[in-house]
Amino acid sequence: VLHQTTSLNATIKKVCIKHPGKRRSAPADLFTTDAAEILNDEEINVVVELIDDAKAAFYIVSTALGNGKAVVSANKKMIAENLGTLLALQQQQRVPFLYEAAACASIPVIRNLEEYYDNDLLQSVAGIVNGSTNFILSKIFREQLSFEAALKQAQDLGFAESNPALDIEGTDAANKLVLLLLHAYGISSSTKDFLYNGITSIQLNDAVVAREKQYKIKLVANAVKLANGKIAAFVLPQFVEEQNQLFNVENEYNGVVIESGFADKQFFYGKGAGSFPTASAVLSDISSLRYNYSYEFKKKFHQRPPELTTDFYLNVYVSAAGAGQLKQEAFASIEESYTGPRHSYITGVIHYEKLLRSNWWKEKGVSLVLLPQPVVEDPGQKQLQHVSLLAEETV
Amino acid sequence: VLHQTTSLNATIKKVCIKHPGKRRSAPADLFTTDAAEILNDEEINVVVELIDDAKAAFYIVSTALGNGKAVVSANKKMIAENLGTLLALQQQQRVPFLYEAAACASIPVIRNLEEYYDNDLLQSVAGIVNGSTNFILSKIFREQLSFEAALKQAQDLGFAESNPALDIEGTDAANKLVLLLLHAYGISSSTKDFLYNGITSIQLNDAVVAREKQYKIKLVANAVKLANGKIAAFVLPQFVEEQNQLFNVENEYNGVVIESGFADKQFFYGKGAGSFPTASAVLSDISSLRYNYSYEFKKKFHQRPPELTTDFYLNVYVSAAGAGQLKQEAFASIEESYTGPRHSYITGVIHYEKLLRSNWWKEKGVSLVLLPQPVVEDPGQKQLQHVSLLAEETV
Repeated sequence: VLHQTTSLNATIKKVCIKHPGKRRSAPADLFTTDAAEILNDEEINVVVELIDDAKAAFYIVSTALGNGKAVVSANKKMIAENLGTLLALQQQQRVPFLYEAAACASIPVIRNLEEYYDNDLLQSVAGIVNGSTNFILSKIFREQLSFEAALKQAQDLGFAESNPALDIEGTDAANKLVLLLLHAYGISSSTKDFLYNGITSIQLNDAVVAREKQYKIKLVANAVKLANGKIAAFVLPQFVEEQNQLFNVENEYNGVVIESGFADKQFFYGKGAGSFPTASAVLSDISSLRYNYSYEFKKKFHQRPPELTTDFYLNVYVSAAGAGQLKQEAFASIEESYTGPRHSYITGVIHYEKLLRSNWWKEKGVSLVLLPQPVVEDPGQKQLQHVSLLAEETV
Repeated sequence: VLHQTTSLNATIKKVCIKHPGKRRSAPADLFTTDAAEILNDEEINVVVELIDDAKAAFYIVSTALGNGKAVVSANKKMIAENLGTLLALQQQQRVPFLYEAAACASIPVIRNLEEYYDNDLLQSVAGIVNGSTNFILSKIFREQLSFEAALKQAQDLGFAESNPALDIEGTDAANKLVLLLLHAYGISSSTKDFLYNGITSIQLNDAVVAREKQYKIKLVANAVKLANGKIAAFVLPQFVEEQNQLFNVENEYNGVVIESGFADKQFFYGKGAGSFPTASAVLSDISSLRYNYSYEFKKKFHQRPPELTTDFYLNVYVSAAGAGQLKQEAFASIEESYTGPRHSYITGVIHYEKLLRSNWWKEKGVSLVLLPQPVVEDPGQKQLQHVSLLAEETV
């Protein structure tokens, strides 16, 4: 494809691979198993890193940047885990380091956050950023597949990471939130800095509750600017209402809702997993190297970035087989409390830091799903909202 | 809002207005009715043009650019009608001239086409780009309002241009297609170079046909790259299928589907009309002036842009009260032919240039609506596609 894209004026000089035995459709002399052949070749000025092993990827990317080569990468894990080091290296070397494919594949979300959405105007970013978990949730909800069967399908179709734990435990989405926080707000973070969980604890009972309330359950990465200017960030399963644009994002698709000044929302939608969407984003990055495009990380280096905060409340639904597993005392206020023969649940407001520092809600048999408006700055205010919500529900 | 956005470090020095008698919420000494007070003030380095009168706007924008001031404009009519002159002036003066608000208001479509979607990879751009006509079509289809009542509502809500003919006759959407063609493909065109029509001829009967086929009618601006590399461009009412992302774009919203390499589609969605979405786009433009951002018009000046072509076929539905108004001989091939008590229609393939050079389909009582896959490069091929289409329809 690169060679078909004649205006790019780019040639592939060498491809470093792991398994020389595999059958390939290109001439054998194009391939090597020794990365040094690429990293030390002065003729090569762009290195595209698309491998699975995050450690090897970090070595390759940091060496390439260190050698003054532009780098295009799709490796969210490697970037999120080494953000500080890579940013310092990029700033020192002043070579382009682009990774649009690392978040939402074909959707140009990083570029838009970096270039178009000014810090002051950006209220929130909410995204379905992991195609694999979204595919699994779609299959469970729409086709009543079991979790295992849905995961198997995702793997067979190439949507899942080689280690599916990264997807289903929420780590991949959390890695992407690290990238979104950097480009949305200039915040340099790690996945240790915010709450995240995957979809492994979602039970059939939760799906039933979601259907009753006309919600869908989606794994959503959220970054929300609070009234005090600080940023609330988390990746958790969430009940999504029909009027939310994310409601209709199904299967391997990704979607991002960006809310900017004046409560105006924009929605970006596209394929979020698979080799072609990733290739498409990688090609766009390569093509912008022609004009020496580089992220300036403006919001981090040219402005004073806001801080992440743990001082806010989340509006949650927590469900378990027995009511005893639901820690009532963890709630700042309780809205609904249901006890039934198959499961029990509580909805209400819990302080974010309390969740961050506890594990009861991650225990086997317990599931936590955010309610549609997940962030509550002041739980007193919440009660008022609740009155009108109930009134609407009874119509 | 500009003053609240402290990181912008921008101050409004003067506001030139038309009606000094109007009550305003800002100090009187901020206002003037003499544009020269702004244009000749050397302290002012950015001029934001948001007026209705395209002639006055052109004078203001060209003078400001000529005086070396950066310009932000939302005036699609003025830009589309003076594209050549403005581009030449911008290239000569090398000052930023930004106009994201001029197409799809809050959706950053121009920026994305300019920066992210490389020419070679861009297969097509299809957009609902006029919030006012879309609002009217939504009201007619969903609330069974009459055309006149729907138009009145659009005007009352501030979605319609002061001269509604610009909206409903398709001129506004055509002006926006001129901007999209420039940033998608580097093509410098005028609305005279392609086919466009509005929604005034859409009849109730057409809406009934659309419903029967589970389509909606939308006014869509299209730019499609043909197999020969040339670009097909037009703005016409179109039957849109449910699986098309544009199907759910209702009311004043705009949506753009961008198809890039490997048949991968991205969808951008947001408010396309109203003062706040426009203000949001204008602010993003102003904020990017901090970093001296400027469209480079890369695809026009750094690459060899493709040509617009008139040599292709359109897949159309043409309806009229009497079968006599349907020019059978204009069709290269006919697919369906219906004669009924209230109206008659033909679906089939017509050569684009034949439509461009004729007026029979614009006559009173005749309506032309594109079918869901509007571009046909080879009408022989069309017949084949049709077989499978019919097969699907009968399921």
